[in-house]
Amino acid sequence: MEVLEERIRRDGIVREGNILKVDSFLNHQCDTELYEELGAEWARLFAGCPVDKILTIESSGIGLACVAARHFGNVPVVFARKTESLNLDGSQYRTHIVSYTKKREYDVIVAKRFIQKGEHVLIIDDFLAMGCALNGLLEICQDAGAIVEGIGIAIEKGFQPGGQSLRERGYHLESLAIVQSMDPATGAIEFA
Amino acid sequence: MEVLEERIRRDGIVREGNILKVDSFLNHQCDTELYEELGAEWARLFAGCPVDKILTIESSGIGLACVAARHFGNVPVVFARKTESLNLDGSQYRTHIVSYTKKREYDVIVAKRFIQKGEHVLIIDDFLAMGCALNGLLEICQDAGAIVEGIGIAIEKGFQPGGQSLRERGYHLESLAIVQSMDPATGAIEFA
Repeated sequence: MEVLEERIRRDGIVREGNILKVDSFLNHQCDTELYEELGAEWARLFAGCPVDKILTIESSGIGLACVAARHFGNVPVVFARKTESLNLDGSQYRTHIVSYTKKREYDVIVAKRFIQKGEHVLIIDDFLAMGCALNGLLEICQDAGAIVEGIGIAIEKGFQPGGQSLRERGYHLESLAIVQSMDPATGAIEFA
Repeated sequence: MEVLEERIRRDGIVREGNILKVDSFLNHQCDTELYEELGAEWARLFAGCPVDKILTIESSGIGLACVAARHFGNVPVVFARKTESLNLDGSQYRTHIVSYTKKREYDVIVAKRFIQKGEHVLIIDDFLAMGCALNGLLEICQDAGAIVEGIGIAIEKGFQPGGQSLRERGYHLESLAIVQSMDPATGAIEFA
């Protein structure tokens, strides 16, 4: 998606360790006009897919998902919560996530009553790299018996294996910008 | 706001310890159609106030703020991040928050470049009880030299002192539903 690639080129900051900082428009300050465009683009790409609900994960996915929801007929958004608590009362789907990018581990929970068997779910998130967070969300959908209609990502790091793995497993994955390479020395960013 | 009060009466769950669970529509599952109505109502209530930017705090404020932004001309949304890290590199405004509701303490940070001196800021959040999180955001605005045009809250617990204190200090506070009392035994909820 041209407008997103241009924005990443202009305002993205490349750091050592495969870090791409886009906090001026995507995940600390949110350019809500751009969010609208991303939402409209996902609606175009997933046209024809029945979507009962959008699932995302806190925090950076929430704004994107809530703005995108309008383009899918104002469906509900459910955001998985990150938690370190050990509360296991059986009312929640829970999965463990190892984040390589952020070098931390955490559990993610979704209340069982908010994902029903047979529901058609679109997953939305800001980043896809190793795919750890997404695999956690997919596991929760599987546990719930929900049908994953697709996965909408703003920025995929194409040089990391998460995206390829999801495509090979047959998921309908739409990443609006796929970074093929980035150079912390020059700041250059190449897209697929 | 009638539609919000009705929804709280219908789907809110009152628990011991002044807990009001509204996770089926406000802060775990998000009713984005309701979010649109809340955004439109804040736009009506803050009409005439110049708003350059909406400031909120992760996680539950983000969706509300991003949906509301469209009703303020798609202004940027900045969400303050909760953190336990001790990174003090001088590029962030930082404040310490004690949450009585959640019985935890944390720091909240906003990158300095995302709140500028003289900017007109509207603060949006889902809940107001003791006002701890809001006071943190106000402190950050003050440190930045930003002008707080108003504070938009979805649900205020009117029996706790946060709202009154903010009004006495002269802030333009608009809470769309003010819970006056709630009874965990009967589930009854009274609004102001």
